Order: sequence, then C-alpha cells, then structure tokens
Amino acid sequence: MTITIGREFGSGGRELARRLSEELDIAYYDSEILREIAERTSLSQSYIQEIIEKRPHPSFPIHVVRTFHTAISPIDEQANLIYQEQSATIKDLANKSDAVIVGRCADYILRDIHPFRIFVYADMESKIKRCNEKDTWHENLSERAMKAKILSVDRNRKKYYSFYTGNTWGAKENYDLMVNTSKVEIASLASHLAPYIKSLFV
Amino acid sequence: MTITIGREFGSGGRELARRLSEELDIAYYDSEILREIAERTSLSQSYIQEIIEKRPHPSFPIHVVRTFHTAISPIDEQANLIYQEQSATIKDLANKSDAVIVGRCADYILRDIHPFRIFVYADMESKIKRCNEKDTWHENLSERAMKAKILSVDRNRKKYYSFYTGNTWGAKENYDLMVNTSKVEIASLASHLAPYIKSLFV
Repeated sequence: MTITIGREFGSGGRELARRLSEELDIAYYDSEILREIAERTSLSQSYIQEIIEKRPHPSFPIHVVRTFHTAISPIDEQANLIYQEQSATIKDLANKSDAVIVGRCADYILRDIHPFRIFVYADMESKIKRCNEKDTWHENLSERAMKAKILSVDRNRKKYYSFYTGNTWGAKENYDLMVNTSKVEIASLASHLAPYIKSLFV
Repeated sequence: MTITIGREFGSGGRELARRLSEELDIAYYDSEILREIAERTSLSQSYIQEIIEKRPHPSFPIHVVRTFHTAISPIDEQANLIYQEQSATIKDLANKSDAVIVGRCADYILRDIHPFRIFVYADMESKIKRCNEKDTWHENLSERAMKAKILSVDRNRKKYYSFYTGNTWGAKENYDLMVNTSKVEIASLASHLAPYIKSLFV
C-alpha cells in the first residue's frame, strides 16, 4: 500500500499524510526522504531543501530550441542529480514497506506500482489561517505577505512538478482523490479516509 | 444536508449519487427535477431534457459586445426560462429535505446553503467500459463512437455550467471533493463516503 500526497502550501496536506500513516500504521516520509538523499549525495540537508524548493527552472528562454543549448549550468546539473537520487530513494522506500509519501513527484515516480494518489487543496483564506496558526518559523507574517508566500511556494511546486513529470500539478487526471480542506477537520478526514484506502488495497 | 454531484459522462456519478442517498437515507433528485420543471413550465419532459443537454450556447460571436445585441433568440429565451424554473425547483427541493442532487449547476444554485459539492471523473478507458456495460439505450456503439459521445456530452455540460455559473466545470476550486472512479467500485466508495459526509453536517 503506497499513498502519495501532493498538496498546496497551507492546505494541511502534510498533517493529513501524518494522520493517515498513523491510522493505517504505515511509514510516513517527508523530511526523512531529504535526510536519506543527503546521505546519498553527501550534500547538506538544508542545501537540498533549498534546491528542491527553488529549482528547477530552465536556465534559458523556452522559445530557444533546446538542442542548440546542450550546455547545462552546474546548478541545473546539481538539481537533476538530486532529482535522480530522490527518485531512487522514493522507489527504495516504497518497495521496503507500505508508506505515505508527501510531495516530491512521488505519484509520478511510483506510477508503475500504482499508488493511491491524493491531492490536497484549499481556498486562500483557509490556507492563510492555517499557516498563521502553525507559523512554524515564527515569522508572524501579515495576511498580505502570507498570501504572497503561499503563492510563491506553490508556483515553485508547480514548476518543479511540471519540469520532472511533464504533467500539470494539481490537475485532476493525475490523482485518484482531490480533497478541499477549507472547511474540514483533518483528523476526521483521515479517520474516515483510512478505511476506504485500505479497502482499495485488499 | 445537501450533496451536489457534478460528473463526467460515464464516470458513475449518478450511481454514486443514488447509493449515497440510500446510505444516508435522504432524497435523490435527477430526472425527478426534470419532471417537476416540466410541470411548472408546461413543457414536455423530453423537450426539456433536450434543451438542458444541448443549450445554451451564445447565439452570437463572443467578440461582439453584448450590449449591442439585446435581441435574444426565442430558443435562448426558452433555455433561460427553463434555467430559472430549474433553479427555483432545486432550491425548493433542497429546502424541503436533505437531498443528493445530480448535475444541473446545483452546486452553484445552492451556494448560499453550502452543500457538500462532489465532482466525479474517470479516465476515458474506464468511462467507455462503464458506458458499454450499461448501454441504457442499447445503442451498441463502437469504442470510437462511444468516445465521441462521451466527449460531446461533456463538452455540452461544460458549456452549460460555464454559461450559467461563470465558473469552470470540473475545476477543483468549485468542489469539496473530486473522486476519480477509474479503478473504484462505486458501492464501496459510497459506503465509505457516506459516514464522512454525515460527520460534516453534524
């Protein structure tokens, strides 16, 4: 049983993943994946985090024919290397045991083993509210700044997903279930969702 | 408790609606709505069905500024009249009792009472399979013809929804839950989904 969770920033996708893994008593991977990759690539975890969040974007205008630009910048090369390592790690982890895996194009990377693919989203108002309540980094952002941050993080996720999968992030055809968490208690959602997912893997 | 279900043709959305209504022991409206409208408008049910499926499309090119074209064709006028009657009917029914309502922009029409809005979709292969298994009208269509029919019905639903709501049919922000039924048994889905929806309305 493998569950992948894509999620908009602030939608509670990570909490849903954690709770689902608890309900189903299976592994949960998120920052753990980063650590594993860091070990494999001998790069620092924070550096990888940065790369994963910011990269990749094509380093040349898209109207330029690619074959004329075989030269790849060292940073792009590094981002690609990390993606390769990450893919191998995700496959290893999914083969090792049942798991919930958050983000990282895992739905695409694991497509051959047919994971249950969830996408979690919410309206902006509730995402801002959720981020402010959490405020992991004690940033105390204004509503305006928080909205800008949410949009920016999701823009990068979309770019990243589209670059490595060729698919559209958050487009329904790439997922088995899309959940709007705007008016939902994640704990309740997880407890109802878990038995359904379990029934699909019997 | 009001549940609205939008659905791609052949995705099993109507079956899900019927089963949810059974699980939750609440009303189910689909062709019933049509009958009600027929009574109100004194038009035949089959004619209304036809109008709802084919209409509306603007009868003038979209680049023409609308205010210069106040003349509306009699058929558009009729379609608008039916939409008005339909809206009133759907509101009446939802006020009268808990209900599952399929299609007909009900998610939009009932937005003030915050229904639980489901959208049901599936990949083309499984939609063709489901349609062929059902074959309500014993058409015995080829795979190619069935695909064309599915695309055509959904094109009309999209046009209809967009015309009357100004929103995009099947776009995640308009729904609380989007379910891909490609690899799913509808009966099992309904039995798991019902208690979750019930918990949201407590």
